[in-house]
Amino acid sequence: LDNTSYYAGVDIGGTKIASIVCNEQGQVLAHLRDDTHSPVSGDLSIKRIADLIRATAARANIPPDSLSAVGVSAPGPLNVASGTIIHVPVLKWTNMPVRDLLAAELGVPVLLENDGTAAAYGEYLFGAGKDVNNLAFICMGTGIGGGIVINGTVYRGRHDHAGEFGHICVEKNGRLCACGNKGCLEAYASGTNITKIAREVFAQTGLYTEDAINAMDCMAFEKLARAGDPLALSIWNEVGQKLGLAISIVVQSLDPDIVVIGGGVSRALDLIYDTVVQSTKNNIFAILHSDLKIAAAQLGDHAGALGAAFLARGERT
Amino acid sequence: LDNTSYYAGVDIGGTKIASIVCNEQGQVLAHLRDDTHSPVSGDLSIKRIADLIRATAARANIPPDSLSAVGVSAPGPLNVASGTIIHVPVLKWTNMPVRDLLAAELGVPVLLENDGTAAAYGEYLFGAGKDVNNLAFICMGTGIGGGIVINGTVYRGRHDHAGEFGHICVEKNGRLCACGNKGCLEAYASGTNITKIAREVFAQTGLYTEDAINAMDCMAFEKLARAGDPLALSIWNEVGQKLGLAISIVVQSLDPDIVVIGGGVSRALDLIYDTVVQSTKNNIFAILHSDLKIAAAQLGDHAGALGAAFLARGERT
Repeated sequence: LDNTSYYAGVDIGGTKIASIVCNEQGQVLAHLRDDTHSPVSGDLSIKRIADLIRATAARANIPPDSLSAVGVSAPGPLNVASGTIIHVPVLKWTNMPVRDLLAAELGVPVLLENDGTAAAYGEYLFGAGKDVNNLAFICMGTGIGGGIVINGTVYRGRHDHAGEFGHICVEKNGRLCACGNKGCLEAYASGTNITKIAREVFAQTGLYTEDAINAMDCMAFEKLARAGDPLALSIWNEVGQKLGLAISIVVQSLDPDIVVIGGGVSRALDLIYDTVVQSTKNNIFAILHSDLKIAAAQLGDHAGALGAAFLARGERT
Repeated sequence: LDNTSYYAGVDIGGTKIASIVCNEQGQVLAHLRDDTHSPVSGDLSIKRIADLIRATAARANIPPDSLSAVGVSAPGPLNVASGTIIHVPVLKWTNMPVRDLLAAELGVPVLLENDGTAAAYGEYLFGAGKDVNNLAFICMGTGIGGGIVINGTVYRGRHDHAGEFGHICVEKNGRLCACGNKGCLEAYASGTNITKIAREVFAQTGLYTEDAINAMDCMAFEKLARAGDPLALSIWNEVGQKLGLAISIVVQSLDPDIVVIGGGVSRALDLIYDTVVQSTKNNIFAILHSDLKIAAAQLGDHAGALGAAFLARGERT
């Protein structure tokens, strides 16, 4: 193994941008985080991404120009072949050639990848999927994304859109989703929507002030459920039901070796795990029950950046 | 190209078994059909499959022992690696080593493949998908199966179960499906279930005798719809809605180049095509609308046998 090669990865989210520098073995040598937007530093720019990578490399005592490749994990829609983000409102970017601009800024080869796909690859290489060939990944964060690894290779589909499990319909004519469609998994099980639904339900009880309710976020409702609050438990139960239905669809369609659940909301996976498994089993063939593998992601915030870094590494060779 | 090699394929269905003999170019040189079960010939046996292949080869003036390989397309669950049908009630077979028994009978290499996957590969090679790399296939017959081709290779999944799009849940707690689960696409859109639903709906009108209703099959209800009967049209409209929802899930998950619809029910695809497309578009990202490809299968009854023959050919080399 070549111990002298280093890679950087950046994961761009709606609220945070996370960077890592790693070696050939996928060891994270340094990592940093920044706000995607902030009053101090303004909206995200290519320059700010480059600065974050340079700062991360400096932390690892690696000159930035000695990085072998840089991977960027970002929300879609985007085009991997051209390295362009098509239109991501949360970044205020339209037709932004991220790959070429960042490569010019850093003087290093760059690859742009869909965040769900990048994280799927990270978990496949170094996380919950490191012993399997085929993996489906569902990333439950602010929104819900996903990715697919087949025979050790990321599968992107025609429009680099494959693995958008957050936007499969789990409730006909259901809740309006941010994507414009109705009844998507995301409309029920993303951090944003769990919070929204829980606030609505708690408001209806008349037991909480508006301020108290608005002060509660997804993690607060998770704590209430863990403390045994029946209302909070019923909300998380419904999240588990919907997630299980979506997983059943993934299993019936892809029959993967493992379904990995990541993203911030997956911290609560243990709370709803039995419901998720039961809901999944209710909608898959019985012969698949005994061998069903649904597991929490293992790389936390680093999955996307690490996956993108190693996709960039593969592209380079 | 080697014009001296010939292949046979057999597609085992619940009611019919179809065989073909083809050359290296996928040209069908001869084909035959038999009943899966019949009062005269009894239940399906390996011997009867072998006889059908020999008869088909004879029609093509090819000595059976000069076939290079034989592919068998059969309902699952089955195991491709061991060539064994696990349990298919309609065939009255449990743990049946079809591949090895048939190979011994014919003295020719045999491959056993899931029928949906075999037909997907047939359509990919010679039918509606011959110009694409990634294809999702939905086979609407007595039941509903499916298959996936990715980068020109069939994708089977961990249990050779991938592509079971007929058994993704499209209606929570919906109609009971033959698989034992509720709300599967098959429970609404297979030939058997369209007939069952239509008979129920027509019976409720009180306008038809029980005999008249029981005499109507799926094709009869299709004819009524084509003649403009509003009740028949409403039934087919619901089939289109449900099929579109399932296709939307396939598109959001796999982002294939094309979704191909085959099987006997797909003869009615033109009747419901606009509904299918609209229902699909209602549940996929807007950026995918303009490029959406949903097409009828082109190989008819030969897709499974031809696909299996060419998978057997590939296995041999």
